Amino acid sequence: MSLLTVGTVAFDTIETPYGKAEMVVGGAALYASIAASHFTDQINLVSVVGDDFPQVELDYMEARGITLDGLQIKQGEKSFFWAGKYHDNMNQRDTLITDLNVLADFDPVLPESYKNSTYVMLGNLTPEVQMRVINQMETRPKLIVMDTMNFWMDIAMDSLKEVIKKIDVLTINDEEARQLSGEYSLVKAAKVIHEMGPKYLVIKKGEHGALLFHEGKMFFAPALPLAEVFDPTGAGDTFAGGFIGYLAQTDDISFENMKRAVIYGSAMASFCVEEFSIGRMKGLKKKDIDERLQQFVELAKFDLK
Amino acid sequence: MSLLTVGTVAFDTIETPYGKAEMVVGGAALYASIAASHFTDQINLVSVVGDDFPQVELDYMEARGITLDGLQIKQGEKSFFWAGKYHDNMNQRDTLITDLNVLADFDPVLPESYKNSTYVMLGNLTPEVQMRVINQMETRPKLIVMDTMNFWMDIAMDSLKEVIKKIDVLTINDEEARQLSGEYSLVKAAKVIHEMGPKYLVIKKGEHGALLFHEGKMFFAPALPLAEVFDPTGAGDTFAGGFIGYLAQTDDISFENMKRAVIYGSAMASFCVEEFSIGRMKGLKKKDIDERLQQFVELAKFDLK
Repeated sequence: MSLLTVGTVAFDTIETPYGKAEMVVGGAALYASIAASHFTDQINLVSVVGDDFPQVELDYMEARGITLDGLQIKQGEKSFFWAGKYHDNMNQRDTLITDLNVLADFDPVLPESYKNSTYVMLGNLTPEVQMRVINQMETRPKLIVMDTMNFWMDIAMDSLKEVIKKIDVLTINDEEARQLSGEYSLVKAAKVIHEMGPKYLVIKKGEHGALLFHEGKMFFAPALPLAEVFDPTGAGDTFAGGFIGYLAQTDDISFENMKRAVIYGSAMASFCVEEFSIGRMKGLKKKDIDERLQQFVELAKFDLK
Repeated sequence: MSLLTVGTVAFDTIETPYGKAEMVVGGAALYASIAASHFTDQINLVSVVGDDFPQVELDYMEARGITLDGLQIKQGEKSFFWAGKYHDNMNQRDTLITDLNVLADFDPVLPESYKNSTYVMLGNLTPEVQMRVINQMETRPKLIVMDTMNFWMDIAMDSLKEVIKKIDVLTINDEEARQLSGEYSLVKAAKVIHEMGPKYLVIKKGEHGALLFHEGKMFFAPALPLAEVFDPTGAGDTFAGGFIGYLAQTDDISFENMKRAVIYGSAMASFCVEEFSIGRMKGLKKKDIDERLQQFVELAKFDLK
């Protein structure tokens, strides 16, 4: 089924204990779309870049079935740029530079061909931009998944909550779930967040896995322990892209299938962190994904006899 | 099969955001033995208390099949006492008081009837005391499980490593695994620790679950997300007791059964935190445990079709 993705398409400069990558491609919509493209080839991307964004990367996206009719290319302007440095433990990072550039006055315009997309992935962006995307849809999508971050809770909680009212699945991390709900226990946080609108809540815990909450039911997906985590940038967006890409492919939003989607998202995220930028994602084959999924099965499988 | 448990039997005064409990019973051997007693009634406890330890609690332990022949009761002396206060997030705590009392010169003496115990649980204690227990065994136990903590890594790493050489399963938390191995990645840490001796490593991650490593294989057991965590004291010891108690009951140390044991340990720990001290453990019935185990199955179960 068709999948609309919205979010940043950007440049990142990243330093980790393993090395440094300068001006590599990144952004929530780029990571999510590329992850999703392993499962579906009807991806409608909405974003904005400057005229500095490499044509070769745009060609790569199109070759993977990502439609760029909704990508605004601003002549004479620069793409969004983020620079950050990870601490030794990789769980913390410092933002060194955030240059909004084209993102500062981004007004998403959906091409006609996008307005009936069945699945929608709202990547992390200002809540106002996320809302403008929802408002341009002609038919209510079958499933709207939304990612956001603590930054918007700090400065735009009211408009954030307006978007949250309209979506089906919220993906945030554990600290964000606590901030949004005011509850420390994730079980209680989930109840509060369900009452805000989303019937499904995915709490991403990075190296500690992910929790899916729905109508009092819980599912826990482990993260795959890795010998080397090279660069965590984009892991959350890649998770979201794998998650919704698998749902769009199977067109089944039952709880059982959403559990699978969380595992697929986790598997894609486990690849993302193995190299800088989309390095690992580029060479990825179906066989690699199937093997990785099997590792998740082995990791989590037990029977009580 | 028979199970020898060694560790503290003590008093705790605990303050959590939910309340305060003064001079309640605790200690590694007490928590582990009581958890194990739900699976086997051949438990040989080795520890020391003063004459202030309540007879009613000793009677309770005996009634649960815990043999106290190896419990030294020092007349005119006081039991080990610990006081601590948990932070709002329950993951951090401050130690307010540690009175070693009888523990200061504890020299474990194994009764003859203990010396051929099939399973041994070395609760957190000085490595020297743990070693003296191992050295008194007449036959090599089928399985020796050892718990320890960062404190001994800080002040007694050499003697700690001597004990680690002689055991089969080490249970520590993620930070301790990193400290012991010098590796941040838990996959690499497990390799280093296997080379120190233990064929099995259990990394306890508290609310983030537990990982079992063995011969290149990994298993992840989630923690059950709870609405209320009342008091985390003793959760690690209760995990260890449930783990080895289940192994002693089934007398099967295959990897598949050890995975089950990790789930049993996690289930017992999830009860422990619901009340102060052994409050929740006391009323626990087989039906409660079976229901809780089923919740773990529901939490972790998925199939890829």
